[in-house]
Formats: sequence, structure tokens, C-alpha cells
Amino acid sequence: MAVGNIEFPLMHAVSGVKLGTACAGIKQTERDDLLLIEMAEGATCAAVFTQNAFCAAPVTVAKDHLSKQPRYLLINSGNANAGTGEQGMADAELSCVEVAQLAQVGAEQVLPFSTGVIGEALPIIKIVDTLPKAQENLVEDNWLKAAHAIMTTDTFAKGYSKVIEIDGCAVTITGISKGAGMIQPNMATMLGFIATDATISQQNLQQCLSVAVEQSFNRITVDGDTSTNDACVLMASGASSLPEIMPGTDTMGAFQLAVQEACMFLAEAIIRDGEGATKLIKIKVQQASSDAEAVEVAKTIAHSPLVKTAFFANDPNWGRILAAIGRSGVDQLDVKKISIYLGEVCIVEKGGRASSYTEAAGQKIMDQQEITVTVVLGRGEQEQQVLTCDFSYDYVRINAEYRT
Amino acid sequence: MAVGNIEFPLMHAVSGVKLGTACAGIKQTERDDLLLIEMAEGATCAAVFTQNAFCAAPVTVAKDHLSKQPRYLLINSGNANAGTGEQGMADAELSCVEVAQLAQVGAEQVLPFSTGVIGEALPIIKIVDTLPKAQENLVEDNWLKAAHAIMTTDTFAKGYSKVIEIDGCAVTITGISKGAGMIQPNMATMLGFIATDATISQQNLQQCLSVAVEQSFNRITVDGDTSTNDACVLMASGASSLPEIMPGTDTMGAFQLAVQEACMFLAEAIIRDGEGATKLIKIKVQQASSDAEAVEVAKTIAHSPLVKTAFFANDPNWGRILAAIGRSGVDQLDVKKISIYLGEVCIVEKGGRASSYTEAAGQKIMDQQEITVTVVLGRGEQEQQVLTCDFSYDYVRINAEYRT
Repeated sequence: MAVGNIEFPLMHAVSGVKLGTACAGIKQTERDDLLLIEMAEGATCAAVFTQNAFCAAPVTVAKDHLSKQPRYLLINSGNANAGTGEQGMADAELSCVEVAQLAQVGAEQVLPFSTGVIGEALPIIKIVDTLPKAQENLVEDNWLKAAHAIMTTDTFAKGYSKVIEIDGCAVTITGISKGAGMIQPNMATMLGFIATDATISQQNLQQCLSVAVEQSFNRITVDGDTSTNDACVLMASGASSLPEIMPGTDTMGAFQLAVQEACMFLAEAIIRDGEGATKLIKIKVQQASSDAEAVEVAKTIAHSPLVKTAFFANDPNWGRILAAIGRSGVDQLDVKKISIYLGEVCIVEKGGRASSYTEAAGQKIMDQQEITVTVVLGRGEQEQQVLTCDFSYDYVRINAEYRT
Repeated sequence: MAVGNIEFPLMHAVSGVKLGTACAGIKQTERDDLLLIEMAEGATCAAVFTQNAFCAAPVTVAKDHLSKQPRYLLINSGNANAGTGEQGMADAELSCVEVAQLAQVGAEQVLPFSTGVIGEALPIIKIVDTLPKAQENLVEDNWLKAAHAIMTTDTFAKGYSKVIEIDGCAVTITGISKGAGMIQPNMATMLGFIATDATISQQNLQQCLSVAVEQSFNRITVDGDTSTNDACVLMASGASSLPEIMPGTDTMGAFQLAVQEACMFLAEAIIRDGEGATKLIKIKVQQASSDAEAVEVAKTIAHSPLVKTAFFANDPNWGRILAAIGRSGVDQLDVKKISIYLGEVCIVEKGGRASSYTEAAGQKIMDQQEITVTVVLGRGEQEQQVLTCDFSYDYVRINAEYRT
């Protein structure tokens, strides 16, 4: 039940980044569930991780290894290795040691990632046994298989790829993501892996990724449940002819925008595949007094079960949007200054039903698959947006039946 | 689909408080939807209201009138008079003027309350025309009809009544509430009306109510959507033989407890009638460093759609509870100190799966209709609890079909 265009794009290989998949049979035996990514020597690697205090063992290990010149990423689907205590940590560390031995690098140069059920022991033997096969399969032109190997409850593989020109040089950005909800701790935690052949220091790459993620992956929500395993990685192989990208330059600006576009595309793909989703909903909040305030209002609307079920029912039930804004916790909110638009249709002005509004006009927008809600607060100049999806019978079904 | 015991109790009349109902035909014509409550001269009245910035017109008017020695409450179901701008304010004020004229009191001595659909004009003519009939019906022994008149999507009428002895004197506390979710802005906002024959000043009554509501109505949630119309009123007629209750006395302590019990009972009744609810879930958080922290953790669990769908499915999917705690925003949370119990069964110890835990033991608890989840944070001495319900297909159905 994905929303809109979900075609897997033509994936441009990134010189210096190889991918190999294999089937370890972690939760099923029909498809690959293990992905090994190799970065050429000298590549830089940035990453951001979940802020959930109960973060999974591989997240703890990957955070620790990030500063130690990573060469390999090892990703498994089917098991989150979260809530697994000391055994989980030992398993995550062992998986790094095994990759390191095969590849003749240090164990601290391997970053582990897991996604799947929480609270069950990682089948580490299966993973270790399957590693050589994944290593044998390492090739640069392997992004499609990689996108499939990291899927859990996703209904389609999510990819992005573009060759852009910066300062007359071709730069490739290619990436994959998974997740059928931003955060579904028991199964579908969000992962993103993006590679570029640009040359850029780890510090600058990290800064670039953090900015991009804040405006993309951190602005989507299916159900508000922050996962224990979320991670997004940006690798830069340095294989392109473009000289090293330095901070504060126009080149950095162009690169930042390109990374942001990749993140935004992959984030939107996750919402299009939101569990049970039938609609893609963009919530824009304008004229806020701060970015944080705009995000808070947008997320309050995006998390409201009443707003989400109204969207599922194609019901222009704007009272629910208004009530969500009213409870969002904005200090000294003057509702008389607030306008709300559904698409181009003004539904609320000066805090009450717009005089020009008709149910028929609202209905016409609600019948669409992709809908923008714009909230104008009249408090300042800041604007932010959040992407979400609706709340359907299938959301309940998927999450009620998940472990059966 | 209400959970557990929902029998309407025998309601003891409260001397000095009369109730009259009538059918104004606001949304339907089969049952009474208008309730007038009269307090004898000299009664005191306390109230708490929604903190939603988009509060309904009657809430604004009632807040303003509360300090002016209220004699009448006028409540309608079927229309919230919220998001109705200046016309809504004029309608709410007009309803007070009309009651005042009939009853020969000041308009500022009338508090208006509305519950129902947001954003539609209040049918004020119907209400005004029906007022005389409600006034004619004013009698003290009329709580059952009153409880029915304020219902919207509620599946049963909610009442509480008790005669207690304080300092050798009989004191009656009788009350009603409505709401099939704590907060459902488009229809079923929560209302509570409680009366006692105790003698107590407005200031002390207000203090008593605020404390009681904080521990009862403010600790329940169906879907996290704070309504535009929530209100709870406590009336004290002074008709009992008990002398005036003064702050800081044992008498006040006993009265406070009695009011709290009434609020808790009526609050729990709302959760038992939660939209689509099949389970009553009590979430206790112990050893928190503050009450606010305990409530925050409990509410994060209570609002998690993943936790709620797992309860609906009788699935002891404790990873979802753990993930919700991890994202609750507690500063410097040391997950290694956390234990979680499902009923009496320890599911998590030291932040990981308890060594003694078996899926069968967890399943036995999950199969029950009323379940307690206890989270031990190991950070301090504070304890709080929140009541919630599960998230079922029927929740989606009820809220997707609400306006059709």
C-alpha cells in the first residue's frame, strides 16, 4: 500500500564503494539479509544514530568505531540486536572481529548495523558463517541487491542516485534506505546508507550529514516511536576528480544541497512506505517564532491519531488539526492570528472557520493521495515542514500481527 | 466495547443541587442533549478547564464567570462550539443571558459547557427554545438522566456516588463524567460534574479539585489529543451538617481523599469506554527522580501506537515498551538500572530481557483484560501512574467514520 511513485531508480555506482549481499537465514531464507559495504582506503565516513537511550548494541559499537577510519559496514536485517544486554554487545563486537579477519583490517574499522525484532539474541553463528559469501560478492554495481537485503516490513526497495556537476567535475551521490515507519522498534527501524565519490574530510562530511539529516530523516514520522536502531551513514570515497571540498565555499554549498536532496528523497520514500499508509501528508508550519516551534507544531499534528484517521477517511475534519495546534505547547499562542490551508484551500482564518470555506472544496483536496497542510502561525519568520502518512486499519493489522 | 465493570451506580442526590434535562435536537432527536444544573444560593463552585490554546467559546466564558458566584451550569452535547470565532462567543454568552432571564440571576452566574463536533455553529435557537423545559425538570434526584444527556460517542453513562462520614457527619459526593477518549476534539471531549453537600469556600474547593484532577483526569489518555472543551466542575452546596471545611485540617484531608476517589473513579470509567478499547492498562513508573519524569515516561508508553497495538493483539512485545522508555526524553537515563514488570512477571532487568522471563508467562498476563505495567527507573523515590487503553481496528473505524 505504498503512496505514489516508488520505482527503483537507475543506480550509478560510486567508485571506491563496493557492496556484497548474502542470505544468512536470520528470519527467513528466501532472500539476502546480510549486506557488507567496503570503502576504499582513504575514504571518509560520517554517521548519525538514534537518540533512543535504549540504543541497540550495534549502535553503541558503531558510534565508538566511527572515529577510527571505518573501512567496512556490516548490516543485517531480521534481528535488531537491541535489548540483548551484554551478550548483544559481545555479538556485535564479534561480528566486527570476523569481518576484520576476513578483510585484514582492524576490528575497530568495521561498523555494525542491525534491524529487526528487539529482544532476541542475534544469530551470530549464521552471520559469521555467511560473511565470506558476502565478501566474495563485493562489487561496485550492487546497490539494488543491497537495498533489498536491508528491508524488513518495507514493501519496496528505496534508492536514490544522481550524478551532478560541481565546479565542472562530475560527482556521484547514490544511497539506499529502509523503514516502513520512521520508527518501529520491533522491526522496521530506519537505516540509510549514502555514498559519494567526492573528496571531503571526515569532520566536514559529518557536519554536512548532520545538517542534511536534520532537515530530512529528522522531519518524517509514521507513528512517533523513535527506534533503538536508527542510523544514517554517508561515505565519501574521494574517487571523483573534484578537489577536496572545503567548508564555507560555494562548492561545499552545492555538495550540501546535493546530499540534502538525497536524504530528503530517501526519507520521503520511507513515508510513502509507511505501515498501512494510503496518503503522503506534508505539514508546513510558517511564520513561527523559531524553527523548534515550527517543528513542534508540525509534529503534534503529524502524531495526532485523530488527524491521521481523518486523513485515512478522506474527511476534511479540520477541527482535529486546530485542536492539535492548540495542544502543541506553544507559549502564548494567539489563535486569532492563525490560518490553516488544506492544499490551496483556506480552511481556517483568524482562528475560526474561513468565511470562504466550503466542505466541497475541502473534500476535493482530501480525496488526493498527496496532501499539503499549511499552518500560518503569525508569530515570526521561521518555517519548517514534516512529512507523515495516515493511520489506517492496516497500521493496526500490521502491528498487531507482527510477531504472529 | 467497554472494559470491565461499567454498571451505573445508585446515585445519592446532593441536597442543594438540582438537575434538569431536555432534548434540543442538536445532533439527534432521540434523547436529551441539554442539561441544566442549579446550585442553591450560597453554594461554592470550583472548575478546571482544558489547556488547549484553541479552547472553545463556552470554556472562555465559563472561565470568566467562575469567580462570579455561579448558580447554574448549562451543558449541551452534539456541538462543541469550538473553532467558531466571534459568533461562537456571542452564542455562548447568549445562552447564559437566556438562563439568567429564566432563573432571575445575573448572566455572569451561569457557566456554559459544550461537547461535540468542532467548527460548526451552535444551534443556539434550538437551545434557547428548549431551556424552559430543562428548567421545569429541575429536581435533585436526576443524575442518571444527566449522565445520559452529556454523552456523545460514549457507550455507557458514567457515574459515581458515595455517602461518607467525616467528623461524624454524613457527606455526599456524587458525580458524572463523559468521554470515550480523554480527548477527542471532534466529538467526545471529556466533561465531569461532581457535587457534594459539604461546606467549603470557593478558594479551598478549587485547591481541592485541582489536586484531585491532577492525579485522576490528568493521568488518563486514550490518544493523546487534548481537547478544546475539557472541563471538570466541583460544586459544594453546604447542605450537610458538617461545619465548613478549613485548609490544613484532618477534615480537609478526608474530604480531599473523597474527592480524589470520585475523580479517579470517573476518570477510569472514561478509559474503560476508550474508543475501540478492549483493555484497561495501568502504567506505573516507580523510582523516578521527579513526579514529572514519572508521568513523562508513563505517557510516552501510553501514547505509543506500537505499544497500544501490541496490547490489542495480546502480544507481550516488551521491546516496544523498552523503546518507548528510551525515547521519553529522560536526561542521562541509565538503561542498565531499569526493570519492567508485566503484572507480576519481570520482563526486563538491568535493561535487558530478564533471565527468568518466559514468553508463556508474559502471554498469560497479556491475555487479561486489565493489565498493569510497572517500570522501575532506579533514579529516585517518585512514583506516578497513568491509565490508558489499547489501540484497535475499532479506534480507526470510529474515528474514520465519525462524520459520515
